Amino acid sequence: MDMREKALKEHELWRGKLEIKSKVKVNTSEDLAIAYTPGVAEPCKEIEKDIENVYKYTMKSNTIAVVTDGSAVLGLGDIGPEAALPVMEGKCVLFKEFADIDAFPICLDTNDVDEIVNTIKIISPGLGGVNLEDISAPRCFEIERRLKQDLKIPVFHDDQHGTAIIVLAGIMNSLKIIKKQKENLKVVISGAGSAGIAIAKILLNFGIKNIILTDRKGILTQMEDNWAKREIADMTNPEKIQGDLSEALINSDIFIGVSAPGIVTKEMIETMNKDAIVFAMANPVPEIMPEEAKAGGARIIGTGRSDFPNQVNNVLAFPGILKGALKARTQITEEMKIAAAKAIAEMIPEEELNEENILPKAFKPGIAENVANAVINAAEK
Amino acid sequence: MDMREKALKEHELWRGKLEIKSKVKVNTSEDLAIAYTPGVAEPCKEIEKDIENVYKYTMKSNTIAVVTDGSAVLGLGDIGPEAALPVMEGKCVLFKEFADIDAFPICLDTNDVDEIVNTIKIISPGLGGVNLEDISAPRCFEIERRLKQDLKIPVFHDDQHGTAIIVLAGIMNSLKIIKKQKENLKVVISGAGSAGIAIAKILLNFGIKNIILTDRKGILTQMEDNWAKREIADMTNPEKIQGDLSEALINSDIFIGVSAPGIVTKEMIETMNKDAIVFAMANPVPEIMPEEAKAGGARIIGTGRSDFPNQVNNVLAFPGILKGALKARTQITEEMKIAAAKAIAEMIPEEELNEENILPKAFKPGIAENVANAVINAAEK
Repeated sequence: MDMREKALKEHELWRGKLEIKSKVKVNTSEDLAIAYTPGVAEPCKEIEKDIENVYKYTMKSNTIAVVTDGSAVLGLGDIGPEAALPVMEGKCVLFKEFADIDAFPICLDTNDVDEIVNTIKIISPGLGGVNLEDISAPRCFEIERRLKQDLKIPVFHDDQHGTAIIVLAGIMNSLKIIKKQKENLKVVISGAGSAGIAIAKILLNFGIKNIILTDRKGILTQMEDNWAKREIADMTNPEKIQGDLSEALINSDIFIGVSAPGIVTKEMIETMNKDAIVFAMANPVPEIMPEEAKAGGARIIGTGRSDFPNQVNNVLAFPGILKGALKARTQITEEMKIAAAKAIAEMIPEEELNEENILPKAFKPGIAENVANAVINAAEK
Repeated sequence: MDMREKALKEHELWRGKLEIKSKVKVNTSEDLAIAYTPGVAEPCKEIEKDIENVYKYTMKSNTIAVVTDGSAVLGLGDIGPEAALPVMEGKCVLFKEFADIDAFPICLDTNDVDEIVNTIKIISPGLGGVNLEDISAPRCFEIERRLKQDLKIPVFHDDQHGTAIIVLAGIMNSLKIIKKQKENLKVVISGAGSAGIAIAKILLNFGIKNIILTDRKGILTQMEDNWAKREIADMTNPEKIQGDLSEALINSDIFIGVSAPGIVTKEMIETMNKDAIVFAMANPVPEIMPEEAKAGGARIIGTGRSDFPNQVNNVLAFPGILKGALKARTQITEEMKIAAAKAIAEMIPEEELNEENILPKAFKPGIAENVANAVINAAEK
């Protein structure tokens, strides 16, 4: 049986990858009287007196919703909220298994920004945090911005920031190997959706100055229809280069692909600077296969796949970031994201660091704890 | 430590009575590839092809939301969505422990009927059913009616129908003992909130003709401000009696209290017919204490409390009803509710039936299964 058949078969057997269990045994009338009526009135009254007590007496402190409208699911596109549910369940599984967070999937039957924002606000009293997932750009940017502004609980859009944080962690460790200064780097990002734009923003915040974004039509310009692309075009491409991806790549130091399979050739890599870094993260087929990138002269190569070295995998980031944010009870700032990237990079000790080992494996113990602690420390500053 | 202190202490230790667990182990890259990307794309695609497949490959088939706006919580009133969370968690615990249903609490930050209806509709794609809880009347009636009309998944308002079903089960068994005909009964209901009105409706559907509802101001009239009270006043009190509760009770056969402590006296019970049935369910102090009702001549007495015989306890109904409705995948009809009441009544074998044993204990095995099967059978008819 191949992997696809097996996945389908297993999902049919599971009928849901999550289970909502009681932590409390209810075997006697006394148990009932403590966990339910009349005893339950006591924590209710304490919370009514001081709403902060909801963190003391309920599941809110460790519970998040993984929320989607099903508009940009994996590489499948706008498949709708029902068809998105297996992915959301999977994400909740990862939150539980990697960071012991109780995560519940919420699939929304609307694509309207106002309705999405309003719905999440209305269901927020019982939630400690919100992880936005697989919502198409540019709507995802507005939804996240408005929720962060209006809600006290942390809101995280993993497709943007999860990917951006791991890419930054990979760059941090790559720079230790190739010994270039971040201020002098030229970075080309292929793909100007939620991930590409978020990567550009975190790299700007990290201190990289020369970043060029491209999409299907070439280097982004100030004339884009999409406001989010226009905004990031304003903040990037300081030399105002025009042209397509191959022109952007000339004399660049880092290529970051969050776009489409096979769009980068060996010849294009050859035009990059010495010691080029290539993160080709299109899934399952990268923008360029690692052996070809190597043949073109790339020194450090990462992909989204677990069967090549240097997997750029969001699971390194999101469990620990939400865990830290739930503890810190604040919105997630740029500083917290950069601190998370640093914590992930530091999971590889200097002596183990090499071209084929710039990022920790997903199952390396302690990642989520270290990321959470870094996030909490950054929040306290 | 008294029960209240213990309840508060335990809630602080639990920090949430629910846990969202993974049914799937994720220990290797292969596990990840099956439960998450890329394998998870397969069930997604199957659901995109045929939306009914969401029942086959996801948690939807066994998952409900327990939804409140915190406007009518226990006897505490409008304490808000955060303070309602301990109760909703407790309800979810009971769904799990009594019927193995995965239930998640959703506490809504709005009291607006349109917003509540719209929010529940928007979050419904991942849900197999909705249990409304502790929403004040008359808003609860409109919310339930609109959701049942617009949603395909079953919607149940336990405060209404859970109570009504158990009361009906208790009456069914009481009639076996006192051998009166339902058509000739005069029933007085004290309390015209969600429970009182739902009890009146189920008893009408069951075939009881003479029902009188009272509230704080006395027997309901066609002049009520509240539309739901006006509507039920139209359907009840065929003799158009006016006056207060004590006048209503004269020559009645059954008293049902879902109102306030201590409002019924021994003298009032004395004016009821022979073999009177008294269900005094105000919590924790009933409308009349059982010993006093007995002294007044009542033959069968039930309360909401577990420390007296004949506890009228919703937990006998809601787990099995939702379990049945999840399997049947239909809205819950009047026939299904009456079938559930009959199944609960039949949990007491004829030979065990007596004045102090008209309803099964909450922990008697098999109740939820029997109720679920009765609901499924009724749905198939």
